[in-house]
Amino acid sequence: MITRAVDLNADLGEGFGRWTLTDDEALLSVVTSANVACGFHAGDPSIMRRVCELAAARGVRIGAQVSYRDLAGFGRRPMDVPPGELADEIAYQIGALEVFARAAGSRVSYVKPHGALYNRTVHDAAQAAAVAAGVRIAAGPDADLPVLGLPGSLLLAAAADAGLTPIPEAFADRAYTGAGTLVPRGEPGAVLHDPDAVVARAVAMAAEGAVPAADGSRVAVAALSLCVHGDTPGAAALAGRVREALAAAGIRVEAFA
Amino acid sequence: MITRAVDLNADLGEGFGRWTLTDDEALLSVVTSANVACGFHAGDPSIMRRVCELAAARGVRIGAQVSYRDLAGFGRRPMDVPPGELADEIAYQIGALEVFARAAGSRVSYVKPHGALYNRTVHDAAQAAAVAAGVRIAAGPDADLPVLGLPGSLLLAAAADAGLTPIPEAFADRAYTGAGTLVPRGEPGAVLHDPDAVVARAVAMAAEGAVPAADGSRVAVAALSLCVHGDTPGAAALAGRVREALAAAGIRVEAFA
Amino acid sequence: MITRAVDLNADLGEGFGRWTLTDDEALLSVVTSANVACGFHAGDPSIMRRVCELAAARGVRIGAQVSYRDLAGFGRRPMDVPPGELADEIAYQIGALEVFARAAGSRVSYVKPHGALYNRTVHDAAQAAAVAAGVRIAAGPDADLPVLGLPGSLLLAAAADAGLTPIPEAFADRAYTGAGTLVPRGEPGAVLHDPDAVVARAVAMAAEGAVPAADGSRVAVAALSLCVHGDTPGAAALAGRVREALAAAGIRVEAFA
Amino acid sequence: MITRAVDLNADLGEGFGRWTLTDDEALLSVVTSANVACGFHAGDPSIMRRVCELAAARGVRIGAQVSYRDLAGFGRRPMDVPPGELADEIAYQIGALEVFARAAGSRVSYVKPHGALYNRTVHDAAQAAAVAAGVRIAAGPDADLPVLGLPGSLLLAAAADAGLTPIPEAFADRAYTGAGTLVPRGEPGAVLHDPDAVVARAVAMAAEGAVPAADGSRVAVAALSLCVHGDTPGAAALAGRVREALAAAGIRVEAFA
Repeated sequence: MITRAVDLNADLGEGFGRWTLTDDEALLSVVTSANVACGFHAGDPSIMRRVCELAAARGVRIGAQVSYRDLAGFGRRPMDVPPGELADEIAYQIGALEVFARAAGSRVSYVKPHGALYNRTVHDAAQAAAVAAGVRIAAGPDADLPVLGLPGSLLLAAAADAGLTPIPEAFADRAYTGAGTLVPRGEPGAVLHDPDAVVARAVAMAAEGAVPAADGSRVAVAALSLCVHGDTPGAAALAGRVREALAAAGIRVEAFA
Repeated sequence: MITRAVDLNADLGEGFGRWTLTDDEALLSVVTSANVACGFHAGDPSIMRRVCELAAARGVRIGAQVSYRDLAGFGRRPMDVPPGELADEIAYQIGALEVFARAAGSRVSYVKPHGALYNRTVHDAAQAAAVAAGVRIAAGPDADLPVLGLPGSLLLAAAADAGLTPIPEAFADRAYTGAGTLVPRGEPGAVLHDPDAVVARAVAMAAEGAVPAADGSRVAVAALSLCVHGDTPGAAALAGRVREALAAAGIRVEAFA
Repeated sequence: MITRAVDLNADLGEGFGRWTLTDDEALLSVVTSANVACGFHAGDPSIMRRVCELAAARGVRIGAQVSYRDLAGFGRRPMDVPPGELADEIAYQIGALEVFARAAGSRVSYVKPHGALYNRTVHDAAQAAAVAAGVRIAAGPDADLPVLGLPGSLLLAAAADAGLTPIPEAFADRAYTGAGTLVPRGEPGAVLHDPDAVVARAVAMAAEGAVPAADGSRVAVAALSLCVHGDTPGAAALAGRVREALAAAGIRVEAFA
Repeated sequence: MITRAVDLNADLGEGFGRWTLTDDEALLSVVTSANVACGFHAGDPSIMRRVCELAAARGVRIGAQVSYRDLAGFGRRPMDVPPGELADEIAYQIGALEVFARAAGSRVSYVKPHGALYNRTVHDAAQAAAVAAGVRIAAGPDADLPVLGLPGSLLLAAAADAGLTPIPEAFADRAYTGAGTLVPRGEPGAVLHDPDAVVARAVAMAAEGAVPAADGSRVAVAALSLCVHGDTPGAAALAGRVREALAAAGIRVEAFA
């Protein structure tokens, strides 16, 4: 399979009040999809409005980066939220962001869970279904609202079950097992720090749909979007290099269909 | 002036997590407009969803009861929130509620500030304009989204300036000055506790558009909606008596046009 | 074994801002140990001060009822808080309460985890150790600060390891398995609703150190404290009946040594 | 008057969860008093512990930087908190910090209000008294716990009335009126940005107790502590220059007596 186009997504608007984190301006010059924090792990209403305005002005698609309600832990602490509550919390966040997306002339056009919720819904069927149910509440009974997640995750399965388009994504800076799953953080080599390697893998993922796995085998990575990180120094610059390399390889960088 | 119809509004959904406050079920059998708390002074996503479902099922109009961000103070502590921030906070709350109103087959069809924000925007032009601006963000550039408030308040003026319909409301359990303003809480007789008196005043407000003032004069109260309270024991019962008395006086109780 | 004295503990001060939950006044007439909420799942500074004042005036011992940081979930949603963070959060809560206990002429003299943290630390060694570490931070390197918990829990073991006195408690309104553990909530008969049965079991626990188990066997319950609940209608009245029955059986109700 | 010694204080620990703000390590090499955020405008338990440990290790005095409860606004939004509530909120914050100060082998040895509360208590007698009352609750009935504030402020007067030592502080980077008050932010020249000027004024304040006022006159600034800022790029470096210049001028930099 030869992929001719790929989406680039990044987490944005992850400040709160006096605090800033992500370099939103720089990242919005690079990515095609902006995962905007909605106030539960980061993001306050004014940040949400500004990011939506910037994204809309640059033609970047707006997505709701939904989270557990956990400012103190930045949404990185897994929580056993009852599914009904979780669905409602997801819907609340999407609705709040939708106001700012619309005010900027755009729409919330996909949803991506953040942090611990992202990881949990890879394998937790109840929470995966709850997230999908929350997206369905916000989307209304008939409309589609795609869900971005890990290929093979229960989240994407639950999204499909709920009639929502699942969008698999890949990580150019993460090692993959021969089975196509991510090498867990904490294991040696789980995260790639060499910018050249990250750039090369991004191109391989988009152009060939495959990368070398940690065990030396070649593993298929069927992703419609590549996730670039924005919360570390140099992250925006690296994301820019990824974009340039994709263009140089003849791959269009554009929001997923 | 003879008024043939009047709206009854009450604050609803003012619990949070484990805590309950308002008797939502009982009040939704009485009122025609439900001011639903949106999470900033009270109200969590699951409460918001349930109240919207109940309201929609009973044909009660849904409004966003927006507040300062102040759970600990129940939105009763005036805050000098910069206008831009305040507008964004208002829009955020309305957007979050809209999701649940739509999911229930209804819409957010008006906005009413809560507590300290309600009182502050009677006389604070900057905050009144900020609330109107926040409602405008949520409503979009063209649509109307009525704002409920005190007759003569800067809030209603700011709403009109922003192209939003101002809806004046009256309080059957509050004493009025001869000038038509509320006798401030804390002054003797500011709040009426005799249920018969409250019921009689509600009928007078709706039928005659006027009530006896604290100074013995007769004062016009031009209200399209009567606010009944729901956060004290017996409140729902009193609201029910008000509704029955209005019906007995030949006044239709229905959501404002 | 014949027990001549027993402690009665209850959760208190579990309101927040405008919201109330526990009938603090009534319970403080009954219990000998007050588990005071510290602001993370419930309890605001003014509630904490008032409960401490009331407790001190009535000679009721003050304990810190520490929790995950989760107002929206009332501390009932298990959270994977990293142990270091959890220890610091526990210490923070104890320190805040200590100010009000001292101002009332008393001290925080024990600690009891709340809700999901209580249940989690029964079997989660890392979190149990984190709670004990947090108590140790607050107690200082040398002083004792007893920890109240379930007999056999890892929490009590971790407390002992940290040089803190473990205080086992029992529940008169919960069914026990033949092995001496609680029948999980959700299973039939897990919670006893018959007041007479609850009272009888409380007396049996205190006088005989044993109660009938769910399987019909007789099971030892070695508790230094009995927990009575205060967050349901009639709870304070039932607690009062328990106290009277204990007295009638010749058992002194007093704070654990 | 010739001052031979002066205290340097700075705001520290103003991150929260994932977010950082102040360069705590660098500032703790410079200042003699650390105003540690206590969780209401910034600062989480783990940050508080770490800052206390660092401060104690370097012999830096620990103070409680107390605030309105306003994470979203970083404590910069004035709030009309009822005095009783405010006093309790102040006491709560001090108690929480005390645990970490003690665990590090130190103590909370002064209190300084943050942001909007600092500015409000310059002229608001009720809130000034409430802050003093909160400090008194935390200090106990007999002990002293100094309060840092603006010379001439109602806060320092209220502290003195409550038997707490008032500690006047000055700002080397702020312009003063001929009357000795700060030129309000927003007026031209209110904040000095030239590092050389800031350093020179710091020395003048400490050595001569006077600086040139905005109107050209010479104004006395009787301060026992100089506040240096730590939340902007280069702030720690500038604070370091101030400290070196004071030493070069023969002024000891040490915590106030």
